Parts: sequence; structure tokens; C-alpha cells
Amino acid sequence: MNIELINTGAELLLGQTLNTHQLWLGQQLAEMGQVIGRQMTVPDTAPEIAAAVREALSRADVVLTTGGLGPTSDDATRETIAALLNRTLHENATVLAHIREIFATRRRPMPESTRVQALVPEGAQVLANPNGTAPGLAFEIAANPFREGRPAWLILLPGPPRELRPMFTDTVKPMLRQIFAAEPAFYSRTLRTVGLGESMVAERVVGPLAALVTQGLELGYCAHSGAVDLRLGARGDRAEAMVHAAERIARELFGANIFGAAEESLEAVVLRLLTERQQTLALAESCTGGFIAHRLTNLPGASAVLLAGLVTYANAAKEKFLGVRPESLQAYGAVSATVAREMAEGARRQTGADYALAVTGIAGPGGGTPEKPVGTVFLALATPTETVVQRRLNLYDRETFKEVTARQAWDLLRRAVLGLPQDFPAAPADSK
Amino acid sequence: MNIELINTGAELLLGQTLNTHQLWLGQQLAEMGQVIGRQMTVPDTAPEIAAAVREALSRADVVLTTGGLGPTSDDATRETIAALLNRTLHENATVLAHIREIFATRRRPMPESTRVQALVPEGAQVLANPNGTAPGLAFEIAANPFREGRPAWLILLPGPPRELRPMFTDTVKPMLRQIFAAEPAFYSRTLRTVGLGESMVAERVVGPLAALVTQGLELGYCAHSGAVDLRLGARGDRAEAMVHAAERIARELFGANIFGAAEESLEAVVLRLLTERQQTLALAESCTGGFIAHRLTNLPGASAVLLAGLVTYANAAKEKFLGVRPESLQAYGAVSATVAREMAEGARRQTGADYALAVTGIAGPGGGTPEKPVGTVFLALATPTETVVQRRLNLYDRETFKEVTARQAWDLLRRAVLGLPQDFPAAPADSK
Repeated sequence: MNIELINTGAELLLGQTLNTHQLWLGQQLAEMGQVIGRQMTVPDTAPEIAAAVREALSRADVVLTTGGLGPTSDDATRETIAALLNRTLHENATVLAHIREIFATRRRPMPESTRVQALVPEGAQVLANPNGTAPGLAFEIAANPFREGRPAWLILLPGPPRELRPMFTDTVKPMLRQIFAAEPAFYSRTLRTVGLGESMVAERVVGPLAALVTQGLELGYCAHSGAVDLRLGARGDRAEAMVHAAERIARELFGANIFGAAEESLEAVVLRLLTERQQTLALAESCTGGFIAHRLTNLPGASAVLLAGLVTYANAAKEKFLGVRPESLQAYGAVSATVAREMAEGARRQTGADYALAVTGIAGPGGGTPEKPVGTVFLALATPTETVVQRRLNLYDRETFKEVTARQAWDLLRRAVLGLPQDFPAAPADSK
Repeated sequence: MNIELINTGAELLLGQTLNTHQLWLGQQLAEMGQVIGRQMTVPDTAPEIAAAVREALSRADVVLTTGGLGPTSDDATRETIAALLNRTLHENATVLAHIREIFATRRRPMPESTRVQALVPEGAQVLANPNGTAPGLAFEIAANPFREGRPAWLILLPGPPRELRPMFTDTVKPMLRQIFAAEPAFYSRTLRTVGLGESMVAERVVGPLAALVTQGLELGYCAHSGAVDLRLGARGDRAEAMVHAAERIARELFGANIFGAAEESLEAVVLRLLTERQQTLALAESCTGGFIAHRLTNLPGASAVLLAGLVTYANAAKEKFLGVRPESLQAYGAVSATVAREMAEGARRQTGADYALAVTGIAGPGGGTPEKPVGTVFLALATPTETVVQRRLNLYDRETFKEVTARQAWDLLRRAVLGLPQDFPAAPADSK
């Protein structure tokens, strides 16, 4: 099935907003065994929207659009597409009642301009929007004039994510399942590795998987900061068997460097392992500045595991909240194996957690020295039986630095919880 | 100038990676007074890349591509474009030496496969990549065969952000400045508001700005979680004067709800205000789980302001690190005005910071009660003179909840630092 996605909105082209719709819809479709064939972003102006929709319809069986259904002057999608498909617009009483109700619930007067959202093109299905005023619209086009009269679907979704997502899940997904039912499935698995570079992953699999690739196995690599995903995909009857055979080979090659599969992130794996074991965690973060806590607390269920996260930027805070000794700070500096160890052990002691992770380093751009250049990080993990300290050099911009460092910290913890050997040597003791 | 952006990579279409290139390049071009006219994402396969580049060249003066220059089997951009433009590939000795050097610095053997990155199409300019092995490539096409022989530029950038960004800034931006020099400039300003809904912003400006709109002023709105940007843009000689006139009107309409302009985020404004005043901040986060600390510490210079961030998920941590009274937790619960106040005052007392922000609430999906449904948040700010507490209801998914709540907290602090009135009422005292 050819599927295309059109995102409308000047803010996407001006670099004001990340295209999270593309990510989220891509994931939703991938779960259904479908891949978006092409994605376009166009401005929220009628000629550009019309051109993009016409082109997409000339290639695709299903076209999804996002945005431009609201009440403001830059919301042009509904009218533009009605004109493109030669459909007249009629005010829909049910939609209008829903809009009135939303304003009544919020106890706000209904601006006259919002009424435009109740206009529905002839023959379009209304997709209910319980979380906003603008409904989605779906056109089943029996004879697509832009593709030799073949059938097509054109589905218009609203821009705000909290409206688009439930609408897609509750209404569009069931529609798409029916549309996709006829075709040979795409099957894919993503194996997630940590601690290896992208070309290292590619070099290692290319030989062992060569035979399967000649039979149609597709390989893909995706490098995140500090982690590489290996995607194994195939189409048709033998897809699943081929992908599973490839997975067995890859698992043998990468062993403990594979931390999971599919969508589960490294922090989700760590949280799951601790939850299963009913164990608790404390965090002591300096250079990562709360990022490790933030990412863990994005996951529902984090509160059962994470007792506290201490973002101790200042030395005084390291002493006060973690019991780091002033002598250690003075003798070795805040970025040292000794202080990392004291932070982790202090966090564990102060909270009573089973495990405590500590991170101290120099994110940059300033603050480096010849012995400890920008990018130097000490990671420490205090467990019920020992404290492990590693020294790393993470040469990245400030945000990537946080991500890479967090992944190293989570992997340190994952390996400790599972009793796997660490794949990075322990840091030598500090010298004065 | 017509500019198009083509991002290659199956990971973007499968929903595995956010398209941060589109955001970043959009910002870079907007600063140069340019807007990307269309953006496309295509898979990293030769026919799809060739089709997209051909189409983009049929419309645009400048086409940028990202990704597909690396050494793995899914890196097809270089060869595909050389074939499309009928250019032969030659190994470039300088590039090869650079690749060898990078592997030598990292003390890793150079896999033979990486050598392909030294191939340069005839007539292409090599764009140095100090942060990686794959150079960028720039083609000045004197007679673009896909657009009636008009001149065009085609610029190929590598996929990893830490390679793409410095290459763009150091090498591509100066090239583009020369290319753009001839044309009438686009001028735009973005005013950033907090505390207002998108349609409220639009409704209020549409009348007062109507006269300027008839003269060519373009309006755009962009809703983030808890904040709305108003974009004012115009083209030609009078662009700057028109945009400034519009800005004066908008500033009168929105007053203190405008927290800044252009790219400066609300947290950057807050950090700047505190830095200018040499004042310090402490954070006590429960439901935001470190997000407020993380976003502040993404900004260079945060360490001069932020003394500590305490992510006190568990009640025991609230007592131990912030001195929250067990009686308060028992009488009113962790999500209460009293506990929020004690968290903020405790964080201020324990760290000696000038200001302390505290947040406690129910992010969901579980944990709500009829009196305190999911989404309930108490925000508290302890200042040298008083403690302000607000009660909000933030009905969003977990991640959006964090963003909205963080913006409310930062705005509470911003208004206090600037001596502006709070635009939200103080929370009533807890009842037992």
C-alpha cells in the first residue's frame, strides 16, 4: 500500500516546531506493518496544499494530512481540499453542536470565527474530535482523478497532537486496518544496541546476513546518541521467518550489547527490570542536570522505582544533600572518580535505595582542563554489594552530551541488575 | 529564492527518529531571511532519492539534502545524485587522508567500506567535515536540466547532527549568503506569549492588524504547550517597517503576556533575568520529575544560577531533603497547596537560593481523586519576601503535562523577578 503524509504549517518550515506528527504517525503505521512512502511539509497556503495533495494522490493509495483545520486565517486545508475534489461545503449541525458544547464546558464565549470548523465537504466522513473543536475528515475517493481513476483515501487530521493522536487511534486506525487487510504484509523487527558505533554494527552483520539479504531481507541502521538500532525487514509470506532467522544471527553477534527490541527504550528496559525485582533507584546528577530523572519519569510507573533525583550542580549541594566530603572536592575536584563514588554512595545512603547512579562531568562549552578536557564524565553506580566507577569522554554538544551520558549510565545499571559483565573498564583511582 | 529540503532515511518514515534537521535548518534559513518552500522525507533508496531531487530541482533554486553519505549499504545519496547529474565519481586524495586521520585519532582500524566516502562527483565542491568521515558536497549547476536550464545549487549534507551543523554554519552559510544577496529580503519577527490560547491570540490581533495585512503583512500562529508564538512577516522594501509597526500594536495588546521575541525560550529569559541580577535558584520537583532542571541546564551558564534541583518523588524524600512536615503530608496529601509551599520554602532554606520553585501534582494516567483529578498541579515560588502558590489543572498526556507545568512555573518566576503582577490567582488554603 502506498501511503503518503503531508504536514502543513509555516511553523514547520520556519524551524519553530519539530514535526512530531511524522514520528508518531510513522510509528503507528509501522505497527500496522506499513511504511510511509513519502512525507512532505508545505506552507499553510492554498496553492501549496493543493499541489502537494494532487501529487500525493497521483502516487498513493492513502494520503494523510495534518493541520490547517482550525479557525484562524492560516487554516486552509479544509477549503482547499474541498475545492480540489470539487466538493461543496455544508454546515454540519452535529459538529456545530459539539463546538458550542466545548466552549460551554470551558465557560468561554464562542467566537464567530470558530463556526467555520463545522463546514463539511460533500461526501466526507466526519471524524469526531473529543479533544478539540475541529473534526477530522475522511474522503473515500472511488475514482481518483489524479491516478487513472484508481480508488484512494484522503484523510485530514487536526494539527494539535492531543487532538490528532486520540482521533487516529480511535477512529482512523480501525478504518486503515480494513483498507490494509488485502495486501501482503511487511514484517520488521528492530534490535536496539548500546555501546557500539553505527559502522561497527554494519560491518559485523553484513557478512553473516548476506545470504538472507539476497533472499530479500532489508537492513537498516539508525544511530541515536550512544545507541544504534538495527532494523530487519522483509515483505511477503516468508517475511516473518526471514526476519526471525536474521534476529537469531544478530543476537549471537551482539550478545549483551542488544538491550531490547522494538520500541522499548533503554530507560524503559531499566525501569522494567527494577520494577520486576521490586528494587529502587536514586539519582545524583551533576552535568546531566536532571535529564536522567526527566527521562525516567516520562515513563508511567517511575514513581514505584525512583525514590529521589538530586541535581547537585553546586559543590555545596553535593556536600549538603549527598554527603560528599569537602576534602574530596578540594583534593580531586568535582569531576573525579572519588566524587562520583561519594555521590552515588551518598545518594544510596540518604534515600535507602537499592541502587544509586551518579554522574559528574564537564558538558562544556567551558570548564575543561588538559587533564580533564570538556566531555570528561565519571559515572558511578552504588549497588547493595559494591560501587563501580567509569571514566568516559563524551565529545558532543551540550544536549547530545546529556543523552550519551544518560545511556551510558542506564547501561551500567542494566548490566549490574542483570549480572552481565560491564563492557567498559573501571576508572583508575584519582591522582592528586 | 525557492529553497527545498530533502531528508533521506527510512528511520524518519518508520517513526524512529525526529526530523531535527528540518527544525534546525529552518531556523538557520529563517535567520537569513529565507523560508524553506517545501520539505520532503524519502527512504534511503536510489529511485526515491532520485525522484525527489529531480522534482525539487524542477521547482527550486537551492536544494539541500541530508543523510545517505556514510559508509553503510543504506547510504545511497552520493552515487544516486552523481548518476542523476551524469557526473563520474573519483577518489579524492585529501578526503581519503582526512578519513584515515580520523580513524587514527580514534585508534580504530579503518574498515575498507569507509573508503567510499572519499568518492567525489566530477565538478562538485567538497565541504569539509571536521567532525566525521563523510564530507558534504555542493553542486553549482549552471544549466539545471530539470528547470529549463536555469541555474541551481544542490547541496548534500551528512546525516549526523553534530557533523551537519558545524558544516552548515562554517561552510554552507557563507555560500548561501552570496547566493541570496540579490533578492528582496523577507523580514520576520516572532513574538512569544505565555498564558493565552491560540484562538485568543488570533482573535485579538486580527482587527488591530487588519490594515497592515491588506498591505502585505503575513500573520502566523504557532501553539506550543502552554505558549503561543505570533509570527509577523513581510517581503520587500517596506517589510521591516511594517513588521515593526505590527509589533508595536501586538505589544500593546498582549503586554506582560509577551515574554520575549525571536528564538529565546521562556526558560532562557528566566535564566538571563536571574543571571543579570546575580540571583540564584533552587528547584523542588515532584510531578515534573526533573524536566524543569533538565531544560534549564540545557542552557550554557545555568550553573551560575541553579544551585540544586531536588526531584522528590517519594514522600520520604520530600521530608528528608526539603523538610516537608509529615503532618502536612498526612493532613493534606503530597499534592496540596501546603506541601507545595513547604517544598519551595524548604528548597530555598536548604540551598540558600534567592528563589525556589516547587511543583507537585498528578501527571497521570493514574492517581486522581474527585477533589484532585489527574492534571491537578500546585506551583509554589518562594522569594526573599513571600511565597506564592497557584493551583492549576493541566489536562494533557504525561510529557505535555510536564511542558505546560514547567512553562507555568517559569512564568510565575519571570513575573516575580520583573515585579509584574501574576496573571493567575493564588490558590486557596487547603481544607482538611
